[in-house]
Amino acid sequence: MHRERFYTLSASCPDQVGIIARVTGFIAEHKGWILESSFHADSVDGRYFMRIEVKADSVPFMLAEFRERFRPVAESLQMNWRLSDSAVKKRVVILVSKQEHCLYDLLARWQSKELDIEIPCVISNHDALRGFVEWHGIPFHHVPVAVENKAQAYAEVQRLFEESHGDSMVLARYMQILSPDLCANYPGRILNIHHSFLPSFVGAKPYHQAYQRGVKLIGATCHYVTSELDQGPIIEQDVIRIDHSDSPEDMVRYGKDIEKTVLARGLRYHLEDRVLVHGNKTVVFR
Amino acid sequence: MHRERFYTLSASCPDQVGIIARVTGFIAEHKGWILESSFHADSVDGRYFMRIEVKADSVPFMLAEFRERFRPVAESLQMNWRLSDSAVKKRVVILVSKQEHCLYDLLARWQSKELDIEIPCVISNHDALRGFVEWHGIPFHHVPVAVENKAQAYAEVQRLFEESHGDSMVLARYMQILSPDLCANYPGRILNIHHSFLPSFVGAKPYHQAYQRGVKLIGATCHYVTSELDQGPIIEQDVIRIDHSDSPEDMVRYGKDIEKTVLARGLRYHLEDRVLVHGNKTVVFR
Amino acid sequence: MHRERFYTLSASCPDQVGIIARVTGFIAEHKGWILESSFHADSVDGRYFMRIEVKADSVPFMLAEFRERFRPVAESLQMNWRLSDSAVKKRVVILVSKQEHCLYDLLARWQSKELDIEIPCVISNHDALRGFVEWHGIPFHHVPVAVENKAQAYAEVQRLFEESHGDSMVLARYMQILSPDLCANYPGRILNIHHSFLPSFVGAKPYHQAYQRGVKLIGATCHYVTSELDQGPIIEQDVIRIDHSDSPEDMVRYGKDIEKTVLARGLRYHLEDRVLVHGNKTVVFR
Amino acid sequence: MHRERFYTLSASCPDQVGIIARVTGFIAEHKGWILESSFHADSVDGRYFMRIEVKADSVPFMLAEFRERFRPVAESLQMNWRLSDSAVKKRVVILVSKQEHCLYDLLARWQSKELDIEIPCVISNHDALRGFVEWHGIPFHHVPVAVENKAQAYAEVQRLFEESHGDSMVLARYMQILSPDLCANYPGRILNIHHSFLPSFVGAKPYHQAYQRGVKLIGATCHYVTSELDQGPIIEQDVIRIDHSDSPEDMVRYGKDIEKTVLARGLRYHLEDRVLVHGNKTVVFR
Repeated sequence: MHRERFYTLSASCPDQVGIIARVTGFIAEHKGWILESSFHADSVDGRYFMRIEVKADSVPFMLAEFRERFRPVAESLQMNWRLSDSAVKKRVVILVSKQEHCLYDLLARWQSKELDIEIPCVISNHDALRGFVEWHGIPFHHVPVAVENKAQAYAEVQRLFEESHGDSMVLARYMQILSPDLCANYPGRILNIHHSFLPSFVGAKPYHQAYQRGVKLIGATCHYVTSELDQGPIIEQDVIRIDHSDSPEDMVRYGKDIEKTVLARGLRYHLEDRVLVHGNKTVVFR
Repeated sequence: MHRERFYTLSASCPDQVGIIARVTGFIAEHKGWILESSFHADSVDGRYFMRIEVKADSVPFMLAEFRERFRPVAESLQMNWRLSDSAVKKRVVILVSKQEHCLYDLLARWQSKELDIEIPCVISNHDALRGFVEWHGIPFHHVPVAVENKAQAYAEVQRLFEESHGDSMVLARYMQILSPDLCANYPGRILNIHHSFLPSFVGAKPYHQAYQRGVKLIGATCHYVTSELDQGPIIEQDVIRIDHSDSPEDMVRYGKDIEKTVLARGLRYHLEDRVLVHGNKTVVFR
Repeated sequence: MHRERFYTLSASCPDQVGIIARVTGFIAEHKGWILESSFHADSVDGRYFMRIEVKADSVPFMLAEFRERFRPVAESLQMNWRLSDSAVKKRVVILVSKQEHCLYDLLARWQSKELDIEIPCVISNHDALRGFVEWHGIPFHHVPVAVENKAQAYAEVQRLFEESHGDSMVLARYMQILSPDLCANYPGRILNIHHSFLPSFVGAKPYHQAYQRGVKLIGATCHYVTSELDQGPIIEQDVIRIDHSDSPEDMVRYGKDIEKTVLARGLRYHLEDRVLVHGNKTVVFR
Repeated sequence: MHRERFYTLSASCPDQVGIIARVTGFIAEHKGWILESSFHADSVDGRYFMRIEVKADSVPFMLAEFRERFRPVAESLQMNWRLSDSAVKKRVVILVSKQEHCLYDLLARWQSKELDIEIPCVISNHDALRGFVEWHGIPFHHVPVAVENKAQAYAEVQRLFEESHGDSMVLARYMQILSPDLCANYPGRILNIHHSFLPSFVGAKPYHQAYQRGVKLIGATCHYVTSELDQGPIIEQDVIRIDHSDSPEDMVRYGKDIEKTVLARGLRYHLEDRVLVHGNKTVVFR
């Protein structure tokens, strides 16, 4: 983690000779000081990925001009790219239900500035965590979800997200399945933590499924939400060892520790523009 | 984790033929239903360790009478033993400084009843976390520690602990070294989380020491506090992978995730009477 | 691991009051010295599991008489049980194909007596590893398997196993699917190492499946073979971290390290009678 | 792992603006196709590290000319650098004592071409593993080491290494301490596997030290050998969980699994020029 202000370029393009030279040549030409850089060639698909951090005060322009000047380079390489500024805090809207472990974990990281973000609001289908959220000075919106009002509820979630100028939405053990529409509106911007080591145990009660199958490790998966349940691009995963003496309830308890850690790691990668989506997979430049 | 009320016998004694038979024979005689049982023979030292959970309503007596009736068995085996009741919540006093990650983690577990304890108070040498603690309805005591008032400060900590009828004291990243006297007064009752994989990097700034040595994994250690700094019996440890790109600040950040998990696991083992101290080591019946 | 000779009792029975007392009472009555003991109550199914090691020279009888005398206790508790003698080496027949990593690993452990077993023979559908096996003084049988001779081939495998008085069969990356008949003949006696973290990626080319799905960890599973492919009771599993830069070939390479370790651990648990099958799950007393 | 022939540039130099641009500009100028590239800036020491793989048939020259042409670029950047050819197999001399687990592991990887190296000879202070080594067609040299002949023995080891045109020497559980002279002659070319998680438990019998201290994880460390015992730059480490029931002998057994895996990983990083030594630390581009 760098304390100095920096710009982050994240990009992918068809692979060819000279990509790094072109991009870093442009940066060097403007005396840009590279703090960190990562490159990856996917030889199966012939696609090239990169992430470069440039010290902000080493270049003689601000973000908008950087973007303008870099555009011709990017176009000549047929790039998908984005450029961000570490001084502009990302705005993250958190969705929760009743379980508090991920929320406590995220707010602790936010309090200590480990997660240097804005949290414009927390949205929940229950009212249980209002006090805790509001004590932190963060607005809390209770949006109940029932069988008969789903469309309306998700429309309200979307309205609140838009109104908050949210960059990303984090489902921190939000126990409702977002509508396919909502998912489709924000590709690569909604993160979920699923309480199993996907692709094992898709859907409901994964710890009970794990107990039935008698596995010796359980896990959690942070992934981008797509309209297909638990099928989106995986960002981060981890596991923990269990044994025959663990009941489904024990697994739930162990699982929480993995869930919050995996979600926090995945979210950090996402916020630092370390994650590039590639089809249904991700490149993660840790 | 059992929902039903149960009694837990934790004991050690010199090894000999027939120990399990004697103890479980006594329990069976009173129709005691054993929920969980663990045994360990230390063949080097010839000492025997055990932990047995008995369903409370399966035996025809309460804790006090259980204790009375079991005493002759224990004496004939020269046991060190204790018997506890799952219905009596342990009282845990938490000590913190300014870093909040372990405190948030412990209070989240307490809120969700994963840690089913009483927290009579939190004590800190800073006032920073007062609001957060008090929001949870837990009394907060600010006991500043300065070079010139150490004896007085630790006397106050001890007074507050006694007044709270505390069973255990948890140093949740409390950045002061308790006086040897205070440590000696509560053997096996004060838990600390040290931010290194002991015995590596004893003392101050372990992550900086780890950075200097160029290790590829960093860790954390939950141990009982004794009067010798960072030398007490180890309860639980874990590590996380790092690499050359991680600065000491990155290690501090990664380390926090390990610290809070290891402390929570160690504390749970302790509270469930799963830890038996044996010289400067522990038997942990997970 | 104990150097002294010992008898191992592995058993399960319906749960009730007094099981441990009955069993350990019997042992104590004969002055049996218990080296290690483990117990587990499955509260969902109401079944009780145990494993007890008794020092051989502490009891005044040999295995056969021990068995005779224990029978009434076992019957009164409706036990499934077995009693084994650490001085009688288990006979393990190994099946391999062309990949050598698991075979090298097992033979290294056998050479160093870490695996204190007899290997009466190695069977392979290829002739490639003959020299290596025979150099170790172990007979090698080449039993080709083709579409048209499968029944005959598996009959030959079974004949060789019987002729060898094999106790267990280990599929050490044997790339053929045994016939359902053969599997059914030896329940709980054939171990396989599957190169994925089951239940993910059942069947062929699991690393390629893992690559396609973009998972961040890959694993291996040691399980008992049943007539349903990759569905048998799981004994042991582990995983290793990968990332976007790893090709399927890299995963195959990483996977080998997990495969051989997981197989060796699972096999050791099996050989030391630490594994009790319970429906399609296992109790493993490590 | 790439199957095609490639050249690997590994280099470090003082950090400044434009390093990547200069180096990759040179490569692009010659139409060099970059397969893999990694960069690291050590901001504390102001030093820059890189590793670049270039497809051999994409550039219009062979290794010697590549080296000649790149020299001016390297000199202008004050680089320490080396350039290697994936078609030239590294020559690795293995030193062992009596324990066979690392040797079996390395030879299995060599047999399967996972380790695509030449092993010109194995040197041992015992004769025990001669047959196994020679069966593989590898010369075996027995060089006994006794208190009175140490200087002579290490001179013989050095003579054999030189005669073999060895690139690297691997101490695969070689239980002798090489002379400081021998270590100093081959900086960054001798790899050792130490059976503890350094810096814990330096020196003899680390598992017994670990048992005494009561740690809950044990580990292994692959490091470059320097004249200071167990103090050289660390390449790779890993750990495994143990508990109170594990004797020192159990730890030795568990430890072997970690030792061979950590040694194999460290050796592969070294052979693929992924390790750059930086003072007493390493940059490892995995």
